[in-house]
Amino acid sequence: MEIKFAARTDLMQASEIREAYKLSAIPGLIAFSGGAPDPTTFPVEELKKSAVRVFDQYGPLAIQYFMTEGSPELREWIVEHMKKTRNINVPVEEVAIIDGGQQGLDFTSKIFINEGDILLCENPTYQGALNAFKAYNPTFMGVETDDDGVVPEALREVLSKNDVRMIYVNPDFQNPTGRRWTLERRQAFMDVIKDFDVVVLEDDPYGDLAYDGSLMPPLKSYDEKGQIIYLSSFSKIVAPGLRVAWVSASPEILEKYIFAKQAADLQASTLCQMIIADFLKNNSLDDHLKLVRKVYERKGGVMIDAIRREFPDSVKVNTPKGGLFLWGEMPQGVDTLEVLRKCAENKVAFINGRAFFPESGHDNCFRLSFSAAPEDQIPEGIRRMAEVIKTFV
Amino acid sequence: MEIKFAARTDLMQASEIREAYKLSAIPGLIAFSGGAPDPTTFPVEELKKSAVRVFDQYGPLAIQYFMTEGSPELREWIVEHMKKTRNINVPVEEVAIIDGGQQGLDFTSKIFINEGDILLCENPTYQGALNAFKAYNPTFMGVETDDDGVVPEALREVLSKNDVRMIYVNPDFQNPTGRRWTLERRQAFMDVIKDFDVVVLEDDPYGDLAYDGSLMPPLKSYDEKGQIIYLSSFSKIVAPGLRVAWVSASPEILEKYIFAKQAADLQASTLCQMIIADFLKNNSLDDHLKLVRKVYERKGGVMIDAIRREFPDSVKVNTPKGGLFLWGEMPQGVDTLEVLRKCAENKVAFINGRAFFPESGHDNCFRLSFSAAPEDQIPEGIRRMAEVIKTFV
Repeated sequence: MEIKFAARTDLMQASEIREAYKLSAIPGLIAFSGGAPDPTTFPVEELKKSAVRVFDQYGPLAIQYFMTEGSPELREWIVEHMKKTRNINVPVEEVAIIDGGQQGLDFTSKIFINEGDILLCENPTYQGALNAFKAYNPTFMGVETDDDGVVPEALREVLSKNDVRMIYVNPDFQNPTGRRWTLERRQAFMDVIKDFDVVVLEDDPYGDLAYDGSLMPPLKSYDEKGQIIYLSSFSKIVAPGLRVAWVSASPEILEKYIFAKQAADLQASTLCQMIIADFLKNNSLDDHLKLVRKVYERKGGVMIDAIRREFPDSVKVNTPKGGLFLWGEMPQGVDTLEVLRKCAENKVAFINGRAFFPESGHDNCFRLSFSAAPEDQIPEGIRRMAEVIKTFV
Repeated sequence: MEIKFAARTDLMQASEIREAYKLSAIPGLIAFSGGAPDPTTFPVEELKKSAVRVFDQYGPLAIQYFMTEGSPELREWIVEHMKKTRNINVPVEEVAIIDGGQQGLDFTSKIFINEGDILLCENPTYQGALNAFKAYNPTFMGVETDDDGVVPEALREVLSKNDVRMIYVNPDFQNPTGRRWTLERRQAFMDVIKDFDVVVLEDDPYGDLAYDGSLMPPLKSYDEKGQIIYLSSFSKIVAPGLRVAWVSASPEILEKYIFAKQAADLQASTLCQMIIADFLKNNSLDDHLKLVRKVYERKGGVMIDAIRREFPDSVKVNTPKGGLFLWGEMPQGVDTLEVLRKCAENKVAFINGRAFFPESGHDNCFRLSFSAAPEDQIPEGIRRMAEVIKTFV
């Protein structure tokens, strides 16, 4: 039988990052590829206690259908959290629970993107976002981005010359670069976009992971026109396997997410929402985050030290102040996909840079994650990478 | 600011069934509207024990990211279950875990439907499926269906005259009619479709809920050409709030579901998958189902007895042999949406029939669910309905 798929199905491909997850199952391979959080940071005992309490307290209602917009108790906590830590002041009606940040990426493009519409991203940007967006067949455009964030003059020029439908940004410890936008750049970004009818998806899974505990106001905290859709998640601050994240947007926009959620999967897991709500009620997220930040600061430091010892000077790697990622550049002309293939043979993996650029190119870039690999394997992994890199540069 | 949504977003609307769920929160209202399973059937203590075991056994891995296609252990169980109870023989590579059956509906239309493509459904069909499909803007067509299933001659005629891209059917205790196709009709359906290049989504959430425990072979068990995509779920046989279901299709097709899942939300909850897998390992689903079937047989019987006592003879209601639903017709000319509005004032709710027809019409039909309402409220709810109905007929 000839199977006729929809045209969009040809655009859906295996995510390179999820494929790298499979690669990481090779025995003995040290994986700096996947961006999974360090499992030693998960509050396993506390979540187990929460699970028991939830079953005891709610009985069958903990595993029954639930309202599409998500647990009222959890959404109330999120409202307080955003107010206290992000200077975002919204009522609970402007928050909905979704199944992980990835679902927010999918829904946003489903809601805003017609085939061919221009979708503007940082350069580079999160590859998983590009993967979600692709199914709706947008025209991708990148905007110039430096260590301080999106360059405002470049943004104004792109928006003036093109009918941009949606902008996707990740201002805090971005995946893949680990960059955090400066305060000035955040204000400048808002100054530019207020002159255009464009919506912005602000993705903030890592904002709580500044190693010094400092916090920056998200774009959403400056939003006066209802242009910003704010997306955050419990995946990196509690645990990802519960698949609980949230989206906050103006009522007119959030309603569309609720419709999308009803059509796509009805609701997030009742049990997982209740477990997280119970965990947050009975534990201090602040105290937990202090531990999490320490682990990542230490592991990032171990990786950077090893890189300084092992990598040739011509390979440049940045030093982030938060999050899970290092971003590097090899000399022009080196194809990091080739380097990756040789590295996999030498039992170490990372992600080559090309996949993070909306308009491709930048073949000499690469992302390293220090979150999932055990700390004591990091120096050896970097040593293995260095062995391979030296044959290329 | 003018917010520009994608064209498809206008097609996404609140599901009438999910809205009815909200209606059911009115104090004192007796809800025959939502199709939620009876919470007294949920194996709460067993699932709580499974949750504890999962945390103890897997520790942080129970809440870490997981492979997109889902738990290998759970998929192995599903393979055995389909072989033992459905005569479906497929390897584990042809099964993937998704977040509830609704996600299977969304993904299938995402994968197969271009705008305007013809999507053929039973007449009537599951309203939540129409809601999922709508976002991809198909041309809906209905095919004649009677108490025995889809009428084969009508199916052949529709397929001969139209370029049908996909067929959606629910042969076992269908939502909304409670009908189960006969064996002959299943074979006749397969005889017809093998002559056409069309894929069939077979939705089977209720197959295990025959009150006498009997099982019928799904269409998938006759599938020689890889035309059938089989969808089933733990929502009605264990509990829906865990959001765990599965899809089985030929490797060429299933690969697209994995890509869709990666892009849409990466994976189903690791914890919920592991809890269900542990539950199925340590408990007998057969024994559990015996209890579940008894509850629904009894509650359905209570509702039918009350209807015979209370409803005017001109209102016809069927008598299903399994599942959660009764399907009825009021005399021609009665608009059950008007009846529903009056009933809500009289503190009882059901679903009016129009929403279940792909091509609309049939305003005199209605669906009653006896699953979620407590058994002792069923007679009173039917009495309240009858009070209102008598003012219409």
